[in-house]
Amino acid sequence: MIMTKPERLLFIINLLRSRERTSLAQLSTQCRVSKRTIYRDLLSLQRLKVNVCCDHGYFLDEQHLFPELKLTEKERELLGFCLNYTPLNQSNHFAGKLAEIESKIIAALNGGNQKKLSRYMVGAIPKLCRLSADQDAVLECFFDAILNHRKISVRLKPHDKEFSGLRAVGISIEDSAWHMCLTDSIGNKTVKIPLDKVRSVAVSD
Amino acid sequence: MIMTKPERLLFIINLLRSRERTSLAQLSTQCRVSKRTIYRDLLSLQRLKVNVCCDHGYFLDEQHLFPELKLTEKERELLGFCLNYTPLNQSNHFAGKLAEIESKIIAALNGGNQKKLSRYMVGAIPKLCRLSADQDAVLECFFDAILNHRKISVRLKPHDKEFSGLRAVGISIEDSAWHMCLTDSIGNKTVKIPLDKVRSVAVSD
Repeated sequence: MIMTKPERLLFIINLLRSRERTSLAQLSTQCRVSKRTIYRDLLSLQRLKVNVCCDHGYFLDEQHLFPELKLTEKERELLGFCLNYTPLNQSNHFAGKLAEIESKIIAALNGGNQKKLSRYMVGAIPKLCRLSADQDAVLECFFDAILNHRKISVRLKPHDKEFSGLRAVGISIEDSAWHMCLTDSIGNKTVKIPLDKVRSVAVSD
Repeated sequence: MIMTKPERLLFIINLLRSRERTSLAQLSTQCRVSKRTIYRDLLSLQRLKVNVCCDHGYFLDEQHLFPELKLTEKERELLGFCLNYTPLNQSNHFAGKLAEIESKIIAALNGGNQKKLSRYMVGAIPKLCRLSADQDAVLECFFDAILNHRKISVRLKPHDKEFSGLRAVGISIEDSAWHMCLTDSIGNKTVKIPLDKVRSVAVSD
């Protein structure tokens, strides 16, 4: 089947995205057109601001329009290990997010039927207190407040003492426990509160 | 400036890749052509096997030609945490690989000047014996043997006892130590050897 020019352009972009280097001869064979036609196609791509570079073969500029995630088998394995053996998995909420991240990465890698990134490396999930559903909800609300730069109020155990107008600035995992990092509204002073001292968190503006 | 049709097609693909849903009106405004022209462009893309779907706006089929890594801010944060606070960082070799993975992911996300994925979450690197340069080299060779399905010979401390014709099948991190998992050539019996008992590993086939 003969490809039209737009078909060839997309085909060439797709091929160059997934390979390190491709020669004019290889492109010509795969598209079943002459090298001269391929050369003109490459010029067309340049004009379309798809930066095709030439140095021992053709390849796409790093900054091209369609950035692609390329990971070697070793990198996939290591990344899978990191996602599966992390203290974050002690939170059901974060564990769910990590599973989604793994799926998205596999999809971006054109991974086909692969279910997990890691096949050969196993480990133990680092010790950290497992979160209750309540704690998970507090942490989720707190994390959202960090990312959305919202002010919060925090109610502490055991006497329901409340602090409001605080800024959520970070989460720290240390000494086998989760900690919430907060500052006053001006950002002058940072305090770190262990999650198990927190009764509830609410967005306050 | 008026775009040519190939320019518009690439522009549209790029726009649809980076957004959830786009309307005909938005595409028409951004390309400065009529909605009718955009509609014809979308039909052309369909013919080019770029699957544009329509359901409350246009979007690209999951299985389209240019898979893209899309991560929310929360997902980037969690992924960055996993890559930075993992026992793998106790190996200089793997720590280098993890830094490369983080760079590649940032590049695929069109991250611009971002240096790290994680900004708000910090943690401690789980306890695990830090690898010496020699141990790092042994582990690297062993890991390559796993991925390349090569047979290896292993020399153990302290008497340099040697076992050959083994298959490297996995790496396990447990009890704060690295272990190499091996089977005999038939795969009948798996043994797990702590890395600090290993003098050297060599590919043997």
